[in-house]
Amino acid sequence: MLWLRGVSMKLMRVSSPEEVFSLIREQFTALESEKLRLEKAGGRILAKPVYSPENVPDFNRSTVDGYALAARDTFGASEGMPAMLEYSAEILMGQPAPSIQNGQCCLVHTGGMLPPEADAVVMIEDTEAAGSVIQCFRQVAPGENVIHRGEDLKKEGLVLDQGHRLRSSEIGLLASLGIAELEVYRKPLIGLFTSGDELVDYNTRQLDPGKIRDSNAPALSFLAEQKGAEVKYGGILPDDFSTYLEKSRKMLNEVDMLVFTGGSSVGSRDHTAGTMQELGQPGLLVEGISIQPGKPTLLASCNGKPVLGLPGHPVSALNVFALFGGAILERLAGHESFRFTPTVKARLSRNVASRSGRTDYVRIKLDQSGNSINAEPIFGRSGMLRTLAEADGFLVVAAEKEGLNAGEEVEVALWN
Amino acid sequence: MLWLRGVSMKLMRVSSPEEVFSLIREQFTALESEKLRLEKAGGRILAKPVYSPENVPDFNRSTVDGYALAARDTFGASEGMPAMLEYSAEILMGQPAPSIQNGQCCLVHTGGMLPPEADAVVMIEDTEAAGSVIQCFRQVAPGENVIHRGEDLKKEGLVLDQGHRLRSSEIGLLASLGIAELEVYRKPLIGLFTSGDELVDYNTRQLDPGKIRDSNAPALSFLAEQKGAEVKYGGILPDDFSTYLEKSRKMLNEVDMLVFTGGSSVGSRDHTAGTMQELGQPGLLVEGISIQPGKPTLLASCNGKPVLGLPGHPVSALNVFALFGGAILERLAGHESFRFTPTVKARLSRNVASRSGRTDYVRIKLDQSGNSINAEPIFGRSGMLRTLAEADGFLVVAAEKEGLNAGEEVEVALWN
Repeated sequence: MLWLRGVSMKLMRVSSPEEVFSLIREQFTALESEKLRLEKAGGRILAKPVYSPENVPDFNRSTVDGYALAARDTFGASEGMPAMLEYSAEILMGQPAPSIQNGQCCLVHTGGMLPPEADAVVMIEDTEAAGSVIQCFRQVAPGENVIHRGEDLKKEGLVLDQGHRLRSSEIGLLASLGIAELEVYRKPLIGLFTSGDELVDYNTRQLDPGKIRDSNAPALSFLAEQKGAEVKYGGILPDDFSTYLEKSRKMLNEVDMLVFTGGSSVGSRDHTAGTMQELGQPGLLVEGISIQPGKPTLLASCNGKPVLGLPGHPVSALNVFALFGGAILERLAGHESFRFTPTVKARLSRNVASRSGRTDYVRIKLDQSGNSINAEPIFGRSGMLRTLAEADGFLVVAAEKEGLNAGEEVEVALWN
Repeated sequence: MLWLRGVSMKLMRVSSPEEVFSLIREQFTALESEKLRLEKAGGRILAKPVYSPENVPDFNRSTVDGYALAARDTFGASEGMPAMLEYSAEILMGQPAPSIQNGQCCLVHTGGMLPPEADAVVMIEDTEAAGSVIQCFRQVAPGENVIHRGEDLKKEGLVLDQGHRLRSSEIGLLASLGIAELEVYRKPLIGLFTSGDELVDYNTRQLDPGKIRDSNAPALSFLAEQKGAEVKYGGILPDDFSTYLEKSRKMLNEVDMLVFTGGSSVGSRDHTAGTMQELGQPGLLVEGISIQPGKPTLLASCNGKPVLGLPGHPVSALNVFALFGGAILERLAGHESFRFTPTVKARLSRNVASRSGRTDYVRIKLDQSGNSINAEPIFGRSGMLRTLAEADGFLVVAAEKEGLNAGEEVEVALWN
């Protein structure tokens, strides 16, 4: 941790991003769970392990269209010397399979049930029917083209562990077991305040001199929703500590996490920090993060609830919320941790300078150029949203690096 | 295009994935547009370009906390020889800035308006106040720490072009301009049918012999919602062509795209293909795709509306829908094209065999191992959803490759 002279001329604890991520892991835990219908549970995290109520499949199933038979009846069969089987019946989809005798076979469709005496399926392409005789031009091994009873899942076996995220594949898996209700972690509810006497509602048509529209409220609300949270917007806070504290206290009672933005003036930053100290224990944890953009970020834990103070600059606010707000939300939603960040491999089009000791998040525009992808850094101040709208993603320049050179291969994370 | 002997013993046109993606680009276009409130427009695509109604910012703004002044009054200033300025006033946030005289300065907060005579801001850290005299220990250049009027956006200049996706940064940018309503492309509505006589509703508690629960309906519905569509589920179709056609025709009138799944039996596959020919011109376009899993995929265009026939195997159905259904939805939603696929760089833990001439989508489990990430291929049949639930993502083995070797560096796309 570094001590730097801060905006309000007091000493400020500046933490590295890694320190902040571990603080988040230490201080915050998953919200309570709730029961949800399967079709509403997509994207949520399991709060309890799920065990299988049955064997899957519950019968030996064919994985192809073909003839179900005893594999030994095909041994030695070839194009020149086909095995001859007696056609016995067609197994209808969704119907129990009939029995077969030695040397017999049944027509079976993909997903159909095998007769108890059959242990393999020969694909229809490898056969030819001549009256009631089926010529089989290939030998099949026992178990070939069959999914066995319980092969996918055993009865009472673990299906998905607590902490598993429900993607479309998990929804399908649980549906195939008839599990219609699940215990998942609750969706986090964020209370959002913006502040700054220069701010007016973004629906304001004509601006008075010195005023700007509050773009952070709708931008952060959408970003938070994309990250699986609901947002309750509390409005623009006036530059007055007691109102700040009173409104925050009331909001914190109703939500799982509080987010302030726009401590862009010294006053509101002090109000945010002061409020964090008053709202609950242990209070303020982080007074700055050694990143660019986004250094003047505040983070507190108030009686177990996270309180995040974002910089007022729109680009910084979005960047910090995407990184640290996102990490907090994953914690609250019950994610173990999001370990893998997918990136686009690209070639840097020009040099990027970076101050050592600070992690830089450089906005990048990607362009296809022949077989490779060009990463064009976008320079511009953190107040300029246009630069963010032009960016496809961002590039992280680690604290120990002093910059990157044109032509280097870099990994660009896409910007939501 | 290849001609192969298909499931129902007829010749089948098998297209490469690239051919299918270009067909999708050729055949389908964006839906009509609709007007939406900004706070509802996140994730949508602009149907018209947006121009700026004003200059942004509308006044010269400070990007730091400091003193606004004429840069020339600081020329030559240093730690040892500070420039002395007369403190004139504090510029209140959201208030018009007062005028200053030569040699004067005003206290300004981040985002505050500069006096008309000031052209730079010196950071508060580089100054010291002594009564009404401000000592300035650094010289600043004209324009330093200032965003000029119109620097972010010029009045009537292009803000975002038609086809631009509205992420949180775009929402913020438009909000900062007071643009409260937008013309965006409509959200696609998908009609979904499942089929197969072995299928029963996934809420069924106890399965009869030979039956399986319809897991594709809820899994595909969630995947489609994640990809920005709404889904209208039409139920499980019986193995009867006239019902098939009648229900499909009615549904197609009400939706933008039709999806069938579970032509796992030959019958339902033929019904799907037949229905596609009857529903409108030009009808069936693709009778198979040279991918694994997912080959027996059908695609049609019926009077401009896409109709997709997915394989019945759950893993194949999800894989094909994620790839080709996703590409169709992007087209309908107005995406120009999604050019960059982010991936996780990892090291393959064992050999992967692949048939040349076929693009393989190999399920991968990722594991951190020291400083690198291990990509463990998951082998399992495409009927087994458990294998998909274990996978973090997938690896594409191009058609011309005959496999990949253990130890190779690979790029893994995350599975939604």
